[in-house]
Amino acid sequence: MTDLYETIRLHGFGDVAREHRRSRPHLLAVVDGAVRLDFTAFDRRTTQLANALADRGVARGGRVLWLGQNSFRILETLIACAKLGAVFCPANWRSSADEVTTLLRDFDPAVVIWQDAEVGETLRKAREASGGDRLWLQHDAEGQGSYEGLLAAGSETDPDTRINAELPLLAVFTAAFEGKPNAALLSHSTLMYQNLIVGRGQAIDEDSVHLNSGPLFHLGTLMGALATFHLGGANVFAARVDAVGLLELIQAEKATHAFIPAPTIEQIREVNKEGLYDVSSLWSSPAAPEWKYPMCMPADAPMLRKLGGYGQSEVMGLISFAYLGGTAAGRVSPMAQVTLLDDEGREVGPGETGEFAVRGPLVMNRYLGADRENQRRGRFGWHLTNDLGKRAEDGSLIFVGPKTAIIKSADENIYPADVEGCIRQHPAVADVCVIGVPDPTWKQNVKAVIVLKPGQSASEADIIEHCRAKIASYKKPKLVTFVDALPKFAGTPFTDRKAVDAAHGGGGYPSFG
Amino acid sequence: MTDLYETIRLHGFGDVAREHRRSRPHLLAVVDGAVRLDFTAFDRRTTQLANALADRGVARGGRVLWLGQNSFRILETLIACAKLGAVFCPANWRSSADEVTTLLRDFDPAVVIWQDAEVGETLRKAREASGGDRLWLQHDAEGQGSYEGLLAAGSETDPDTRINAELPLLAVFTAAFEGKPNAALLSHSTLMYQNLIVGRGQAIDEDSVHLNSGPLFHLGTLMGALATFHLGGANVFAARVDAVGLLELIQAEKATHAFIPAPTIEQIREVNKEGLYDVSSLWSSPAAPEWKYPMCMPADAPMLRKLGGYGQSEVMGLISFAYLGGTAAGRVSPMAQVTLLDDEGREVGPGETGEFAVRGPLVMNRYLGADRENQRRGRFGWHLTNDLGKRAEDGSLIFVGPKTAIIKSADENIYPADVEGCIRQHPAVADVCVIGVPDPTWKQNVKAVIVLKPGQSASEADIIEHCRAKIASYKKPKLVTFVDALPKFAGTPFTDRKAVDAAHGGGGYPSFG
Repeated sequence: MTDLYETIRLHGFGDVAREHRRSRPHLLAVVDGAVRLDFTAFDRRTTQLANALADRGVARGGRVLWLGQNSFRILETLIACAKLGAVFCPANWRSSADEVTTLLRDFDPAVVIWQDAEVGETLRKAREASGGDRLWLQHDAEGQGSYEGLLAAGSETDPDTRINAELPLLAVFTAAFEGKPNAALLSHSTLMYQNLIVGRGQAIDEDSVHLNSGPLFHLGTLMGALATFHLGGANVFAARVDAVGLLELIQAEKATHAFIPAPTIEQIREVNKEGLYDVSSLWSSPAAPEWKYPMCMPADAPMLRKLGGYGQSEVMGLISFAYLGGTAAGRVSPMAQVTLLDDEGREVGPGETGEFAVRGPLVMNRYLGADRENQRRGRFGWHLTNDLGKRAEDGSLIFVGPKTAIIKSADENIYPADVEGCIRQHPAVADVCVIGVPDPTWKQNVKAVIVLKPGQSASEADIIEHCRAKIASYKKPKLVTFVDALPKFAGTPFTDRKAVDAAHGGGGYPSFG
Repeated sequence: MTDLYETIRLHGFGDVAREHRRSRPHLLAVVDGAVRLDFTAFDRRTTQLANALADRGVARGGRVLWLGQNSFRILETLIACAKLGAVFCPANWRSSADEVTTLLRDFDPAVVIWQDAEVGETLRKAREASGGDRLWLQHDAEGQGSYEGLLAAGSETDPDTRINAELPLLAVFTAAFEGKPNAALLSHSTLMYQNLIVGRGQAIDEDSVHLNSGPLFHLGTLMGALATFHLGGANVFAARVDAVGLLELIQAEKATHAFIPAPTIEQIREVNKEGLYDVSSLWSSPAAPEWKYPMCMPADAPMLRKLGGYGQSEVMGLISFAYLGGTAAGRVSPMAQVTLLDDEGREVGPGETGEFAVRGPLVMNRYLGADRENQRRGRFGWHLTNDLGKRAEDGSLIFVGPKTAIIKSADENIYPADVEGCIRQHPAVADVCVIGVPDPTWKQNVKAVIVLKPGQSASEADIIEHCRAKIASYKKPKLVTFVDALPKFAGTPFTDRKAVDAAHGGGGYPSFG
């Protein structure tokens, strides 16, 4: 009896496609160039693909890798994998041949869906170098050996396999602060809970049109794409990000949501300054605040009205949201617990800085093939994020900085974010990144890399004196250097600390644990 | 390694209280008369109660029954049970001594929390008649044998027991259309998914103040209360529903949400016609549409802007929502699948009427102690709702009527809702209920019980002729009777068909299955 209802209660992410076919048979699911599929066609094609992959041996736990630009086939393959209980990884197609080779060996997929255009040469090199017995399917081709060829051979009859939502579905490679990237395995339930939470925040519903203009191998774009699919909206795919192409898509499809890197937004403004393209579906006006962020959404979306949060790939992108209330990085997600731990796994005192530790169904199942890392990151019964933070008096989260970027000087822990916060208060400073540089006596010295405001000036001594007056003396920089700009992660305001380290002699950071 | 992260991913409904204590330490959790608890105090008290109940032997799967009016202790006990993995049932305190006796025998709780005021005499009779070895705790008393006495004895140290969200947490007795009521067991995950979906629909967030003025033994009020708690808002409890008392609470607590039966809303309008009480937090104006429904919510809440849906207690209240799109009863919830089955479990054809069948995590775990019924209702791998419906062309659900109320006449199936829809089109008709009355020749005859509009008239022959012209002849009523009003389920527009049957000779319905 109980078993009967246990089965009835199962709901994998593939079931969302099945229900859309019943509930929204004629609504648009995906648009990609000339391809326009309603939810009926989309569900049928994902069933065909799942059946075809099953015929080629892909079963529960099987792994499928995507190596190509944005395409509606990413969503199709994800849903086909969901129906099989398999794991899908949309990987970074911008990687070098060596990186792809490592990825292929690490993820060890049974099936690779690849693209010839732009990246064919790199991928062929990696394919040869990595070896392995895999099915390679080209998605930008027809016929034998192609994605479409395989799909067409699949039966349209849905075996309706029941999938436990605790199974992993999505693999996202995350750039660890040290060492090589690991694939975080995220379950069906993780995706679905996050879709409901992000869907509310971004005001996504069945009338939404999500323009996938950011890379789908990052959760920034993927979160919006998955929530849009789950809630019955349409996903529009752009293989490349160029201003005119995006303007045409925004106008033609009446996009309501998008992930557009800040420089591209600037280009769009420039190209469209005469208002040749109607972009009113996406931005209420060129002066509106929703123009400012890579995550574009309706002006009344809670996440736009109150932007901010904290997260990482291991917790499906975001685990706290300013839109849920409070200050700074906002409140913890309704489906998570967050605490702050010291290095022995004890909760730190009120207001103290500790490591963000997370529990609940938004946490990944584990890193793939990294049991030592799983053991280490889960050792206190919480997922350790490697990020430092604290609680505001009202209970909101405050992100302090990555834990592995602690600077160790004369056995004192120095958090770059602390020092940066101080230096930012200097009236001449526009931007700053604080790094540690190796020192034989003190282990590391604090070095500030600073961008000055236009027309302003400040000396090394000015900055050091400014810090001495405001923070503990051991935290003040010993070295200051001035630059024109700091390297940022594409489309974000976040400084690429590794790049700053590389350019300015950073290193010697204390290792974690 | 996997086991480590399996444990990390656990998230019972009690964890929501734990995180609120961290994330919203100073926000108001509950208000009840002189009692005002913030989330810090609320979490501490639920831990004390859980520990005290554990000391008295309540463990995973243990059952706790509430027999009293609305109180903040209902939410406290629910969360204490959540922390233990126990099952909580808020029962109908309006029941007779015989009904409570049956309930006690059926639910067989280890602990009964009861109220002396108003219902003490009834409960004492039932306690004596039902026997059983139970801990009885009076909630409207202090000291020995009282709820507060037991709670005060509980340790404040949280053992932080990890609970799988698939365990049942809430038991809701549902009035089956035939036979005795069964307790639907609803899991932690069922509650939490529904909280996210209802929370978005009702625009509930941490600024919400939910006035629990409807009975908490029904999901109508409970859904809003649980979503409010989950999303960090405040729950205000009213033990009884009277216009002045509610007006005082709405004004004092600035209630934003409430469940208020329609007649009480009318009384409130009358009492407050001079505007003595400020009710602007709940209703934008006395003429606003949000005055019209028992579920009161902000004027811009999606569920108010598009009201409607289909559900039952076995699927946590609602499984489709007009706010999700479409027509009629709206679209299926993002966390469910719904299909339409015939009596052999085959999907019916497009546009045809069938039985609503549901899958996914919003479905109950099972009926408690009713294995034959579980077997019957889950026999096709779907939960059979006993309700008939169909799909609109756009995929929306259309509720036709309860399956067990099919009228069988000369082997034709007649759905009362069909005939009622026809009769409602008659210009003189204000309300109607169509029932079947036993007939030796035809099995049943169709009888229409009609309320005419004030000042209008129509004869039996008029009504029959009206139907003959519009629907299949075998569906037209053979008998028509006129009444002043139809019996309704308290606080709803739904006719109590059993009461109409009883008053007008209804019966002989075909049995199901």
